[in-house]
Amino acid sequence: MDEKLQRIKAIELQNRMVTAEEAASWIKDGMTLGLSGFTRAGDAKAIPYALVRRAETEQFKVDVLSGASLGSGVDKLLAEAGIVNKRAPFQAEPVMRKKINEGEMLFVDHHLSQTAEWIRAGVIGPIDFAVIEALSITEDGMIIPTTSVGNSSVFVEHAKNVIIEINLSQPQLFEGIHDIYEPGMQGQRSPIPLTKVDDRIGTIGIPVDPEKVRGIVFTAQEDSPSTILQPDAESKVMAEHLLDFLRKEVASGRLSNRLAPLQSGIGSVANAVLHGLIDSEFDNLEVYSEVLQDAVFDLIDAGKVKFASASSITLSEEKMKKVFGDFGTYRDKLILRPQEITNHPGLIRRLGLISINTALEFDIYGNVNSTHVSGTKMMNGIGGSGDFARNARLSIFVTKSTAKGGSISSVVPFVSHVDHTEHDVDIVVTEQGYADLRGLAPRERVPLIIERCVHPTYREQMRSYYEEALLRGGQTPHVLEKAFSWHNHLAANGTMHLSE
Amino acid sequence: MDEKLQRIKAIELQNRMVTAEEAASWIKDGMTLGLSGFTRAGDAKAIPYALVRRAETEQFKVDVLSGASLGSGVDKLLAEAGIVNKRAPFQAEPVMRKKINEGEMLFVDHHLSQTAEWIRAGVIGPIDFAVIEALSITEDGMIIPTTSVGNSSVFVEHAKNVIIEINLSQPQLFEGIHDIYEPGMQGQRSPIPLTKVDDRIGTIGIPVDPEKVRGIVFTAQEDSPSTILQPDAESKVMAEHLLDFLRKEVASGRLSNRLAPLQSGIGSVANAVLHGLIDSEFDNLEVYSEVLQDAVFDLIDAGKVKFASASSITLSEEKMKKVFGDFGTYRDKLILRPQEITNHPGLIRRLGLISINTALEFDIYGNVNSTHVSGTKMMNGIGGSGDFARNARLSIFVTKSTAKGGSISSVVPFVSHVDHTEHDVDIVVTEQGYADLRGLAPRERVPLIIERCVHPTYREQMRSYYEEALLRGGQTPHVLEKAFSWHNHLAANGTMHLSE
Repeated sequence: MDEKLQRIKAIELQNRMVTAEEAASWIKDGMTLGLSGFTRAGDAKAIPYALVRRAETEQFKVDVLSGASLGSGVDKLLAEAGIVNKRAPFQAEPVMRKKINEGEMLFVDHHLSQTAEWIRAGVIGPIDFAVIEALSITEDGMIIPTTSVGNSSVFVEHAKNVIIEINLSQPQLFEGIHDIYEPGMQGQRSPIPLTKVDDRIGTIGIPVDPEKVRGIVFTAQEDSPSTILQPDAESKVMAEHLLDFLRKEVASGRLSNRLAPLQSGIGSVANAVLHGLIDSEFDNLEVYSEVLQDAVFDLIDAGKVKFASASSITLSEEKMKKVFGDFGTYRDKLILRPQEITNHPGLIRRLGLISINTALEFDIYGNVNSTHVSGTKMMNGIGGSGDFARNARLSIFVTKSTAKGGSISSVVPFVSHVDHTEHDVDIVVTEQGYADLRGLAPRERVPLIIERCVHPTYREQMRSYYEEALLRGGQTPHVLEKAFSWHNHLAANGTMHLSE
Repeated sequence: MDEKLQRIKAIELQNRMVTAEEAASWIKDGMTLGLSGFTRAGDAKAIPYALVRRAETEQFKVDVLSGASLGSGVDKLLAEAGIVNKRAPFQAEPVMRKKINEGEMLFVDHHLSQTAEWIRAGVIGPIDFAVIEALSITEDGMIIPTTSVGNSSVFVEHAKNVIIEINLSQPQLFEGIHDIYEPGMQGQRSPIPLTKVDDRIGTIGIPVDPEKVRGIVFTAQEDSPSTILQPDAESKVMAEHLLDFLRKEVASGRLSNRLAPLQSGIGSVANAVLHGLIDSEFDNLEVYSEVLQDAVFDLIDAGKVKFASASSITLSEEKMKKVFGDFGTYRDKLILRPQEITNHPGLIRRLGLISINTALEFDIYGNVNSTHVSGTKMMNGIGGSGDFARNARLSIFVTKSTAKGGSISSVVPFVSHVDHTEHDVDIVVTEQGYADLRGLAPRERVPLIIERCVHPTYREQMRSYYEEALLRGGQTPHVLEKAFSWHNHLAANGTMHLSE
């Protein structure tokens, strides 16, 4: 009991301790929940688990908001229990994905920087319960988050009730690395004062009206480790292409050897590409991203990255042990911020980020699909890729040129879903090479993409599509009735090779 | 001569007067020009005309950058003369459009807020000659622009040489209404200090290194009047739907009767919709837009709009006479800014704009095509619509539900080009009604769009597309092989009615 009370330094809140079951019992059918959690880090765990247990004997549904994807099996269990009506703004979980694609659950795929605006303006919500994982509560009643910030601060401010999950297994040295900033209502805002990656502009915890704190529960469940794969040969080649491009930028005087603050999306490929910087000549790097994966800590260890700002830290099991076990050596090089600040379009443009995100497919004009398999089935969601791509100094998308053993070309005549338009994509990279699309008209982009990015087994097929399109003319030549022929051939024949 | 010298108050520049022919003779094959001009306002006129005359006896090509579309026949004459290799970031001229779509000219269709970044970073350029229309040059050597600012300040700062066209016919009372602000290099910037629509943050003229001023020419040619049409019956109905929506926002407490700063795109429909506010109950309005068309001045006259900020003023012939003839009554209610500031994503979000732009077509999930007829032929360009739609408080797109006497449905199963993704579109409006898509999953949006926005003659056809799509499942159900069937039917049969 004493250890628990030590984590609740605000004396007036010490009498709010309850069991997860009791807290979960307050949540009623039709309510909206705001759960902490961003890319499997710092997610609320005890209350969702208790809710899932309640669902064994009771029928109810809730709307679930989060920062981004939830770990610890939460999205999986919520989906299996069938208790989610609507989920936003991101998920990355196979069972939930299946329910979404079967139409059994609604999913609002939203730019990660924008959900806070909707909550603040009352477009979604009201949030009945914010459920926030915390390290502790300070004497003056601030919630100290754990391994992510995400949307937690806006949830707490706008929820009718707050439940705090104090997690005793999360590294206590995280206290002090958070920087909570609330921009205020649109139209009444001051400029966000951040001008450098390591600027502190807010408080180390989330202010909360003590009246709203309905309950405090204790857990000791660790975050789920990330499932990223070690860089494979093709990812390493992609990283090399990207380094070549960056070298050219340095040679032209557009970048210095310190590059510019780096953002890298979630996933194995983006992680591998970042990892490629370790043995490069680039130095004194900074990271301004939404999530810090293994590669960032490898870069810190290698003395390459001097500071990293993000909304969460999501590591593989092994890396988590090392970093969390020795967090004192990292904590003065890190800040965790609300996702509205990490992904803020104004700050992204001000800082001039180099933004690296993963494409599912892109087309000959540089439009990118990051979300929908064959244009219909949701993979994860747009996440922050749109926040970054639109305003970065360099908007880079990476993908292997083929998938499924070559039967799918990741470069297609016309993407089957557009998440990033031709206006927002600067550089596309595959293991074949990179194409720098900046300043190019659509007709200039096509040969570059075909010769540098398309897999050789699909080049001739792409050339003949484009030749036929050219006969039709236009700023952006297409043969509209054949635009999705590769996808249709895949659906019918299991391959995008039209001759098979 | 005296009148001319009075316009050049910087004594050291008084010896730079030349003829347009002489100045134009400095421009060589392969050069890049930065011409002032934004939506037919404040465009460089004398030098482009002289260049076109030179082209009668000489072969050369140049790349032409501008603010946005050029009036005074400049884009038309440049296109006819065949002297443009590449044009960016916007145009809206039939002859030029034809050349672009025939592949005889390259066109880079670019977010209007972003071209300045490319110039500053050296991605495009270098600019050999900036050609800037001016009212005068101040004693300390600042160029006072005329009816637009556009990209003029960034052109001047980064061009190797500057030619100034002092236009004696432009209203001299414009001196003092400009507010020139240079944000500086990415990564070294302070926050842009603007927090209110009427904030002044810069200088009244464009600073210029006198060494770079190669020549000063004089003209007296007026701006081209805008070609917008008077609001027709359907536009008025659309305006009514929009007002209904805004009333609902006020009733729900999300907006006050003063609404929020308004942005309205170029063109007759957006102008008509803005015009609809005149007889409304909304009051004390502010405009933060890229261009001020007739309706804004009608709203000022009606006492509805108290302040308007933009990058240009583009009026019909009649309105131009009235406003420019009596400019003293308007000038303390107006500021003209660089397009990078009017369209800045960070400022758009900070101010919380209500953004109203025109769609060419939109689809059942809310993706918007603003640029490409049948997915291939460029109309004008994305302009600032992406800058605004992505970050506005309310991103609204308007279009009549049909075109060409009903043979084209402006609502389609799948847009043939995506400029604004489903993530960036809040409200769609046709003369049939409006659909509020905020917070809705894709499957929730479809029935709303079909029943409220699609023309009745296309509803059944759309319902049957969607029913078939639903059988395939997915977050965003589609029948990919029929996604463009309406466009293909139009191409083959002259109508999107599949039964005809």
